Amino acid sequence: MSGIKGLRVAVVGATGVVGREMIAVLASRRFPVADLLPLASERSAGEHVEWGGADVLVEALDDDAFEGIDLALFSAGASVSERYAPLAVKAGAVVVDNTSAFRMLPEVPLVVPEINAHALVGHRGIIANPNCSTIQMVLALAPLEAAAGVERVVVSTYQAASGAGRDAMDELRDQTIDLLNFREAKVKHFARRLAFDVIPQIDTFQPDGRTREERKMIDEPRKIMERPDLRVAVTCVRVPVFVGHCVSLNVELRGPLPLARALEVLRAAPGLVVADRPEDFPTAADAAGQDEVFIGRVRIDDSVPHGLDLWVVADNLRKGAATNAVQICEALLARDLLRVP
Amino acid sequence: MSGIKGLRVAVVGATGVVGREMIAVLASRRFPVADLLPLASERSAGEHVEWGGADVLVEALDDDAFEGIDLALFSAGASVSERYAPLAVKAGAVVVDNTSAFRMLPEVPLVVPEINAHALVGHRGIIANPNCSTIQMVLALAPLEAAAGVERVVVSTYQAASGAGRDAMDELRDQTIDLLNFREAKVKHFARRLAFDVIPQIDTFQPDGRTREERKMIDEPRKIMERPDLRVAVTCVRVPVFVGHCVSLNVELRGPLPLARALEVLRAAPGLVVADRPEDFPTAADAAGQDEVFIGRVRIDDSVPHGLDLWVVADNLRKGAATNAVQICEALLARDLLRVP
Repeated sequence: MSGIKGLRVAVVGATGVVGREMIAVLASRRFPVADLLPLASERSAGEHVEWGGADVLVEALDDDAFEGIDLALFSAGASVSERYAPLAVKAGAVVVDNTSAFRMLPEVPLVVPEINAHALVGHRGIIANPNCSTIQMVLALAPLEAAAGVERVVVSTYQAASGAGRDAMDELRDQTIDLLNFREAKVKHFARRLAFDVIPQIDTFQPDGRTREERKMIDEPRKIMERPDLRVAVTCVRVPVFVGHCVSLNVELRGPLPLARALEVLRAAPGLVVADRPEDFPTAADAAGQDEVFIGRVRIDDSVPHGLDLWVVADNLRKGAATNAVQICEALLARDLLRVP
Repeated sequence: MSGIKGLRVAVVGATGVVGREMIAVLASRRFPVADLLPLASERSAGEHVEWGGADVLVEALDDDAFEGIDLALFSAGASVSERYAPLAVKAGAVVVDNTSAFRMLPEVPLVVPEINAHALVGHRGIIANPNCSTIQMVLALAPLEAAAGVERVVVSTYQAASGAGRDAMDELRDQTIDLLNFREAKVKHFARRLAFDVIPQIDTFQPDGRTREERKMIDEPRKIMERPDLRVAVTCVRVPVFVGHCVSLNVELRGPLPLARALEVLRAAPGLVVADRPEDFPTAADAAGQDEVFIGRVRIDDSVPHGLDLWVVADNLRKGAATNAVQICEALLARDLLRVP
């Protein structure tokens, strides 16, 4: 990327857990940022974020905030993206949006760069970053799809509190302290107490009994993998972990794939770290702060002809959100696609 | 059970989490105990357990401990059962064993009374209590099996620390306190830190990459449900919860079963409590201290012709261990099978 003039980059939701991580990842991956513009709601404007060793003032998001901006990363909720992302595009910025606002629109690329960077070509200004659990799941599935075809997936998740934001992390901490001190744990953000319990609900319920999170994990892999017929059964569960999502993945392949070969194709895939031995399985703590997706417990499931079980772990704030978003920015830059058509 | 002379009942492993629960359940279900003999290792002998409002001395387990005992409940590890259960039978006691020592022996009934109490007939002195997660899984599966047939099950578990005993619960508590006080968390019992993390390993690994716990959840349902062809894929995971196992259960049925009918057969099944609405899902905290198995999030899985997803929760120390064991005792008594052939 030598010779590139630095870009003017806005981060919307700069004070949130993902926003802060986006700024950290832009720095750690040396994305060519000339100016960083952290934006947030009126409530958080006036705070500071660290950039280049200095404290940068967070400005209030308004209709004119995107003047002169080349690239805007959004992570402030779907309603904020719905309202402001079109304004950013109008002002000439390319938007990489971490919310669910635009993911399923046919004209919006939904991208995990290791899998479908080609989908960026012809974008109309907005690129969607997939759901956190989806990203780690499709990164595990893509090499298996290429090697043998994926017929059906049954997945159960173990998702960290940070997927619901900073307040949710605080709530887990406060509930834990309350319980250890024989006080009643207060429930605010989550549907139930999360400390020392698990909650089989992420996002709201739909009429079919699925949660919206579960619907995302059915729809988004279909789009990213360009497999509208992909069959997915999913249960999403919040666990009392601060950072790092785990998924238990049962895969029914279309054709035979010996275990040794499955391990080989997973190891050769970009962005994956595959455990050598069963006892080297990754956990949330191993993935926290890392950009890769970690895979362990790969084993044959003989309950179907071509079955495989896997345990897939990633930092939901990094590869599940900020890192993937910045990798999208890198892919746009590398393909000279960082402009609004 | 009127007219029954009280029984002399031994509890082996009386100071453990399950042993204490067995004694509590014997009391709360008013099992006709004339004399209670709490037994434990030399290390724990001399402690006391509560029985009938009094403290009863825990005696050391030895070869002669079962003289005059009618019924012996074992929960002190497989090696203790292997050595002492045959001695108890020889002394004339019927053994209900909570360990994995005898579960898969053809001559040993493996019983969940709501499902296969008939298997008690013809026992030879030892009856096995199934694995904790297995019990709650088969209680959910049995009504579906009767209504439509079960073809395949894909299950992921969320298992509490108490499944590994009192030391494991202490370790979760101590690790949590250490982390909240910015100290390093010590790992002793578990393979990794459990506090604020999840561990995809329960029991030891086998050559096929499965854990022994996962093997149990494949083999035991086949025996209990008398379905040697039942196809099960399973991943067992420890979560930072003290009491209460949850399982995410994906079921492929053999024939059609409308959702309303599925809910109907589950509601009609003994021992189950079924949530009315999606948002009324049970969690570990709801099940703790209860004897029933709680089911929620029942919904159609359209990734297979006759798919169903369920969320199944139980107190692993009660229905997953002590309650089921005492229910086996009740079934033996009701069928006049409380004697060694």
